[in-house]
Amino acid sequence: MPKVGIVGYGQTKFSQDDIKIESVLLGATKNLFDRSSHLNQKDIDAVLVSTNSNSKYLSAILSEMTGIQPKIGHTIESLCNSGTNAIVSAYSYIVSGLANLVLISGAERYDSPGQILEWDHLRGEFKHPIFWASIFSKSYKRKYSLTAEDLALVAVKNHKQSVNNPYAISQKAVSIEEVLNSKKLTEDLRLLECSRPCTGGASILLASDKVCKKISDYPIWITGIGQKTTSASFTKNSAFDSMDSTRQAAQLAFQMANQKPSNVDVMEIHDAFSVCEPMALDSIGFTAPGKGINTVKDMYLTENYKINPRGGLIGSGHPLGATGLAQTVEITQQLQSKAGKRQVDQAKVGLVHNMSAASTSATVLILEN
Amino acid sequence: MPKVGIVGYGQTKFSQDDIKIESVLLGATKNLFDRSSHLNQKDIDAVLVSTNSNSKYLSAILSEMTGIQPKIGHTIESLCNSGTNAIVSAYSYIVSGLANLVLISGAERYDSPGQILEWDHLRGEFKHPIFWASIFSKSYKRKYSLTAEDLALVAVKNHKQSVNNPYAISQKAVSIEEVLNSKKLTEDLRLLECSRPCTGGASILLASDKVCKKISDYPIWITGIGQKTTSASFTKNSAFDSMDSTRQAAQLAFQMANQKPSNVDVMEIHDAFSVCEPMALDSIGFTAPGKGINTVKDMYLTENYKINPRGGLIGSGHPLGATGLAQTVEITQQLQSKAGKRQVDQAKVGLVHNMSAASTSATVLILEN
Repeated sequence: MPKVGIVGYGQTKFSQDDIKIESVLLGATKNLFDRSSHLNQKDIDAVLVSTNSNSKYLSAILSEMTGIQPKIGHTIESLCNSGTNAIVSAYSYIVSGLANLVLISGAERYDSPGQILEWDHLRGEFKHPIFWASIFSKSYKRKYSLTAEDLALVAVKNHKQSVNNPYAISQKAVSIEEVLNSKKLTEDLRLLECSRPCTGGASILLASDKVCKKISDYPIWITGIGQKTTSASFTKNSAFDSMDSTRQAAQLAFQMANQKPSNVDVMEIHDAFSVCEPMALDSIGFTAPGKGINTVKDMYLTENYKINPRGGLIGSGHPLGATGLAQTVEITQQLQSKAGKRQVDQAKVGLVHNMSAASTSATVLILEN
Repeated sequence: MPKVGIVGYGQTKFSQDDIKIESVLLGATKNLFDRSSHLNQKDIDAVLVSTNSNSKYLSAILSEMTGIQPKIGHTIESLCNSGTNAIVSAYSYIVSGLANLVLISGAERYDSPGQILEWDHLRGEFKHPIFWASIFSKSYKRKYSLTAEDLALVAVKNHKQSVNNPYAISQKAVSIEEVLNSKKLTEDLRLLECSRPCTGGASILLASDKVCKKISDYPIWITGIGQKTTSASFTKNSAFDSMDSTRQAAQLAFQMANQKPSNVDVMEIHDAFSVCEPMALDSIGFTAPGKGINTVKDMYLTENYKINPRGGLIGSGHPLGATGLAQTVEITQQLQSKAGKRQVDQAKVGLVHNMSAASTSATVLILEN
């Protein structure tokens, strides 16, 4: 079976600008083209769009705008982990021989309809994701005797790291006091520890190993893929202090890549809210249950960018359909030693963790150089 | 590489009922389960939803409702050929080894937002598909000296055939006079020669060859896949009397299957409007340019159900996200000799043709028993 490599990437600045979804997709894709001097875009034979936008036929529209006439083209939606679902689809198209060079473009607007969980009637009126995140926060703090200050440090670390990411919406470091004194949205969550809805796009280009060499001097390989959906409603989660779908997805990805957590040099974790970062570290297997927050503190104190170097969702912003792709762009840059001030030393194995709706579904990718 | 087989199918009656999209997906999937006595639904490891609905996270919702915890799950949208795009994705997942047993469920409501072509500003106010179909009709009639009566026969044939399809919205044969005297929607199109928006669902189950044997005594194999997107806007079509993306998709599919048009025993053609059926027959290569209508007449006069046995989109109704799947269900039943009164004799090779937005994109599948 052919290997599949990442041979190009691009993104837009994440903002709260009122830009048409088609223009966001185009912006991220033009940025990819500008960085890919060996690419003839007519060679692209599949175009997948990742978004929660209600606009239709976006793959054909993006293709026409960029002079591509693909064989395969459609939109993929799975709330917040649409982007990694699209990457897995592109991977499959290449391995199965139906495509050789696949463009994946993800985009969202600040007013995306994917941000409200309309279907989940068990929530009553509490359809905004912040309500599951509050229950997670309360449950995780209670079980492991943590404080609001402990979790606020996730936000402090990620806002600090995003200052070195020119595409991030947050460009200002904040103190623990600033996080704790920011607007109280629920009993357990303040404004600065929540990822922000925003307008943004990210694109990547995947190729079969034969095609890789023509386009990139330094392809990054997708060696592990794990996905799992356990339910659609967070009230069906087996626990509120760990993430079962994330645990299962990580196991599948490590198994496929023949890797283990201790070998991972740099990782993107889906920190939609502060509690998600330590909880995901536990569930992926980087830390023992409840110990994720210690690792977050260690990384902060030693100024190690290993976890969410671009600032995570809290620092970068969270344009749903673009997030999984922007995470993958970051790990690709890290493994190519092209991450500038965010660069982690000697990064050889990277991990992307993306999830939807209280980790009722999750994707984990392992990337290697 | 593993072969990929169709090992189950189900559908709902097509109607104009006001049913929630989740319930339509569930109805088609329950019908599949009812027909699949050897299936343990817990073995399903991917759930793809095909729809133009604005509802999000439908794969996870359908999975939860049916007791499935899939690895892979998302929604796929490409207007009218969403369903066949989802089949091609499922095929890729199986061939690439990421899944063994994939449920694909397509559904739409009568008020689907995919029915208006909002993005195509070259159309001015003419955003309903009937306007491209009118231009196609005028152009095809003029180039090949055909009359309104000639094209009306497509509707007569397909309404007649749908009477033998219990899932079809139309259950009444109509005469040429009735078609020509039905409400005139544009200069070139009457109500009875247009497919109708409707509420409906269809599901199929794909498996790798190893898994096929456990679930079905008579799997139908997907041997050819062709897809092509030429643009997003019909005004960019190279001609209005043929379908370039359909022609290219058919060539790719026949090549992959090592088959040719003359070997096809039964076919589903995307007759969104009467003119589409003969034009697609020409473009796929069944008939010389302009001769498709002669074949339609021959089939009608000899009562041969070879073309659109279930009544096509005109007779069955056109619930966008379900159509490609319902077409595939029909060809599967034909190749299994289970099509009842619609059965075509000795059907061994079948074809599915599905397209979006004036054939700006198209999918062709070859199925064999």
